[in-house]
Amino acid sequence: MIKYPNNKTYKKKTFIPRNLGMILEDDINKSNEYYLKNNIAIIYKKPTPIQIVKVDYPKRSLAKIKEAYYKKPSTTDYNGIYKGKYIDFDAKETKSKTIFPISNIKPHQYNHLKNINEHGGIAFLIINWKHYNEYFFVPFNFIKHWWNEYKSITGRKSIPYESFKKDCYLIETGYLPRLNYLKVIDKLYNI
Amino acid sequence: MIKYPNNKTYKKKTFIPRNLGMILEDDINKSNEYYLKNNIAIIYKKPTPIQIVKVDYPKRSLAKIKEAYYKKPSTTDYNGIYKGKYIDFDAKETKSKTIFPISNIKPHQYNHLKNINEHGGIAFLIINWKHYNEYFFVPFNFIKHWWNEYKSITGRKSIPYESFKKDCYLIETGYLPRLNYLKVIDKLYNI
Repeated sequence: MIKYPNNKTYKKKTFIPRNLGMILEDDINKSNEYYLKNNIAIIYKKPTPIQIVKVDYPKRSLAKIKEAYYKKPSTTDYNGIYKGKYIDFDAKETKSKTIFPISNIKPHQYNHLKNINEHGGIAFLIINWKHYNEYFFVPFNFIKHWWNEYKSITGRKSIPYESFKKDCYLIETGYLPRLNYLKVIDKLYNI
Repeated sequence: MIKYPNNKTYKKKTFIPRNLGMILEDDINKSNEYYLKNNIAIIYKKPTPIQIVKVDYPKRSLAKIKEAYYKKPSTTDYNGIYKGKYIDFDAKETKSKTIFPISNIKPHQYNHLKNINEHGGIAFLIINWKHYNEYFFVPFNFIKHWWNEYKSITGRKSIPYESFKKDCYLIETGYLPRLNYLKVIDKLYNI
């Protein structure tokens, strides 16, 4: 528990055991809600694509899906508009202290980000290094460099932590927004 | 049936009775596929949001959704990037010969389009007048004008067909792409 100046007590967020995949998603969604409410940007997580097989109508007004399956997404999870610019990204995480396995980025995600970048959109990843509790803004050019290493004859399988420290950008974390990734975009793209 | 030069026969598309809601969506999806394959634009339909309640795992590798419900979407159905611009739209249709009921546009859709427009994105509707087999590109300003009429004291409930003829833009239809709505954007927004 932590005491705040207004004398209320809150459970301190970091005390709760975290299912971090969901928490990262939740942190990004909450940041996007903040951006939306404050008229800063309009960014949403795309719904998970589902293949629906069987639907029942127990009432006229109610459709109950009885059989369905997850479908492979063909793009990334997040897109939207910020200062007139199209932005598009995905979120990843690693428990490792030393490396990020490049195979965590799926070919359809890489190809989509590449495509967006070529069409003048802002394409990137947010990567959470859980051990360090650090969130990196990973610009497309960084991803492209390492993807080419990955696909090359030498076939590098992972990106060292040091490269993130050197060539990526730490995202400020806070209460609102939880992950201020748009601040990195402001600096990086001069918009 | 129609004979093609390669001597194969195909069912001519217009002979098939159409579930037009699905067909309009399909026509837009196919147009988007064409745009994507030809590196013209990257535009996708967002998946329908689903609230998942129960999932079974009949095999380790298979997740079978046993109970789920449709959720209300909070935005529009389509978004993407074209010539560096963020674009965002929804598709509607009417069977009427004379009017389009404004209530076909939901408040969350109107608010989202308004928001996108204010942030510098290209926001619009594609409206199919089924009786005329016409597809209109409906710019946000047109929607805004009629939405204000709708919300005013006089409370107009519908938009006459003539207003579409006068103030909207017919979308060229064809084989590939089926609905060339980006051509309207080229002219209208000078990009």
